[in-house]
Amino acid sequence: MRNLREKSLFVHQHAKGKLRVDVKVPVQNKEDLSIIYSPGVAEPCKAIYENPESIYDYTMKGNFVAVVSDGSAVLGLGNIGASASMPVMEGKAALFKAFAGIDAVPLCINTNDPEQIIQTVKLLEPTFGGINLEDIAAPNCFLIEERLKQELSIPVFHDDQHGTAIVIAAGLTNALKVVQKRLSDCKVVVNGAGAAGIAITKMLLHMGVGDLILCDSKGAIYENRPHGMNAIKESMATVTNRNRLQGDLKEVIKGADIFIGVSVAGALTPEMVRSMNSNAIIFALANPVPEIMPDDAKAAGAAVVATGRSDLPNQVNNVLAFPGVFKGALQVRASEINEKMKLAAADAIANLISPAELTNDYVIPNPFDRRVVEAVADAVARAAIQTGVARKPFDKEQENILGKE
Amino acid sequence: MRNLREKSLFVHQHAKGKLRVDVKVPVQNKEDLSIIYSPGVAEPCKAIYENPESIYDYTMKGNFVAVVSDGSAVLGLGNIGASASMPVMEGKAALFKAFAGIDAVPLCINTNDPEQIIQTVKLLEPTFGGINLEDIAAPNCFLIEERLKQELSIPVFHDDQHGTAIVIAAGLTNALKVVQKRLSDCKVVVNGAGAAGIAITKMLLHMGVGDLILCDSKGAIYENRPHGMNAIKESMATVTNRNRLQGDLKEVIKGADIFIGVSVAGALTPEMVRSMNSNAIIFALANPVPEIMPDDAKAAGAAVVATGRSDLPNQVNNVLAFPGVFKGALQVRASEINEKMKLAAADAIANLISPAELTNDYVIPNPFDRRVVEAVADAVARAAIQTGVARKPFDKEQENILGKE
Repeated sequence: MRNLREKSLFVHQHAKGKLRVDVKVPVQNKEDLSIIYSPGVAEPCKAIYENPESIYDYTMKGNFVAVVSDGSAVLGLGNIGASASMPVMEGKAALFKAFAGIDAVPLCINTNDPEQIIQTVKLLEPTFGGINLEDIAAPNCFLIEERLKQELSIPVFHDDQHGTAIVIAAGLTNALKVVQKRLSDCKVVVNGAGAAGIAITKMLLHMGVGDLILCDSKGAIYENRPHGMNAIKESMATVTNRNRLQGDLKEVIKGADIFIGVSVAGALTPEMVRSMNSNAIIFALANPVPEIMPDDAKAAGAAVVATGRSDLPNQVNNVLAFPGVFKGALQVRASEINEKMKLAAADAIANLISPAELTNDYVIPNPFDRRVVEAVADAVARAAIQTGVARKPFDKEQENILGKE
Repeated sequence: MRNLREKSLFVHQHAKGKLRVDVKVPVQNKEDLSIIYSPGVAEPCKAIYENPESIYDYTMKGNFVAVVSDGSAVLGLGNIGASASMPVMEGKAALFKAFAGIDAVPLCINTNDPEQIIQTVKLLEPTFGGINLEDIAAPNCFLIEERLKQELSIPVFHDDQHGTAIVIAAGLTNALKVVQKRLSDCKVVVNGAGAAGIAITKMLLHMGVGDLILCDSKGAIYENRPHGMNAIKESMATVTNRNRLQGDLKEVIKGADIFIGVSVAGALTPEMVRSMNSNAIIFALANPVPEIMPDDAKAAGAAVVATGRSDLPNQVNNVLAFPGVFKGALQVRASEINEKMKLAAADAIANLISPAELTNDYVIPNPFDRRVVEAVADAVARAAIQTGVARKPFDKEQENILGKE
């Protein structure tokens, strides 16, 4: 870790951050200036004034994404504030470019007040083609995303929720094939009721999960639980835990088919794994140390184990989802990223691994599998069209040409 | 013009805007990911959390400028709104990069409410190293800039005011050498009391102008004028027009040494020029058609004429000022861009033309004179240090190395 620490500080300091802005038109002489600036630039301005949608033809907006954070839930560091979150948001923007060719910039907002965050992003809507919310603490993140989705006509996506949920759903789909179970027959325990836990819960409900018990640090969440509830937990309590199980993780995990941990290191013990149903599936996603290490989980009887770590098999890495999700949404000028689009993304990721290739240790594609972004973008664009939220036809040929520029 | 119109629309549409974001660190494999993103990115985050100033070491902030507009005074187009202003703001950002290597992005804000604009920019302070306000209508632009200068600790610069004023001041300095007059002996008439007119008035007062009469469409501005006043005009009235001249431009220009027009086409007639003092200096900056054409002004006795047009001699082009001004301010992490820094910029621009080179038709350097940006940046950085607003020493050697990357 000392080595990585020094390398990271060196790379960041040497390059002074990770992004630069470049000019994609010539600026060599007076004629160039007269075209890209005064007086010629008045022409696209007038065109946009007359036809607002033509902003996508004449500006960078259609491929421009803001990575927005208040720095309130950064990695495992907590609420370190907007300034200290800059390296993460720049990094996220770098991944947008490297994986999907999307121009993205960090926008670190110096407040934890959800209304101020909503207002700031709302006022900047003309500039951007999409908004990626990042590392905003629960429960504010739910309010902020919900309001922005209602009030903006460009896609808004909280990656800590939906990016994670999409990749978990993809991995789970394949893991179920490996153990030959159906999700509708499964009892799932999700440990952690923050952004990711809530999002994967919602997604599994959409996918028709048999039963799902959502736990937080106080144990199973059920309707009218007296302590540690909030609006989103109350809402989840009405649609999960059909037997109103109470008690801590150790109690409620008995007989479960699937454990999804988005909680803390060591939260899942071998004893708990042994109490699960046979052929248990474990997604232990706490970072950097998982809820249980894969070897320990397997020794206790787990069939498939996934973690968030790049040095272990089956890595749940959001980079499998968000670049393609935004690429697909931007390609067809989707006004939102809806449930169908997310499910399509999860399916696309899952289907990249053929039945013949599937093993216990290969249910999730490698983050650097170059097929991923195109497969996800295609699926998301098509789902956007099918759900009526696309404002532009899906012109695959043209996008290929643009993509090669 | 039809030709330029078509070219501009074609170039904008073909490139889909003028900017792209690029990644300046490797993103090729899992190790790269672990350095620029999780878990390695936590290290610069922690470093910034512990020492906020180190954000300049580990992120792009120190070379990152927001080009902020509400689209309320775009070119000659008026209040066309945030979306339609995007091509101009992207163009401005492109000039930042092309002329000074500064990473800049447009931030078009969807409101004309000055408080909302102030709040938005304020909340984004962590992200940017400087703020360039652009095409915001008077008098809101004065309020917005003043408040942001007070409330932010990064440079805030309204280019329509100060960029224009700096280049006018540079050209005027040289023009006065040509006609062998001193500014302290001169009577100046500034026609136009918008952003640029107010800014050049303030600057000439700092430079020790003899007398200055500021005019708007209602004629000379004087204390307690009954019509068409606002806070900034009232304020200017107290420090200009020492003889409390009243009347229209035609009246007050009699005997003036210098005319500076930031108003409308044709506002200055040959008759008015003939009524000025001998060796008159005319800056006719209305765009695209000046207050008077240079040939007409010269026929009426003017000695030096400047315009805003690239096809005529002595072009007042902001690109001579803002790239170097920001470059110099960012190099030494100046907390503001103050009067001394602006005057230093104007002197640096003026001094690029040696006394031997000076002619009536060459008082302002060419916008593509590659010496300009360095000369301005140097002068601005030194003035920042001299005025105590620099937070970093001026390390010319290191900047040269970085500049060559």
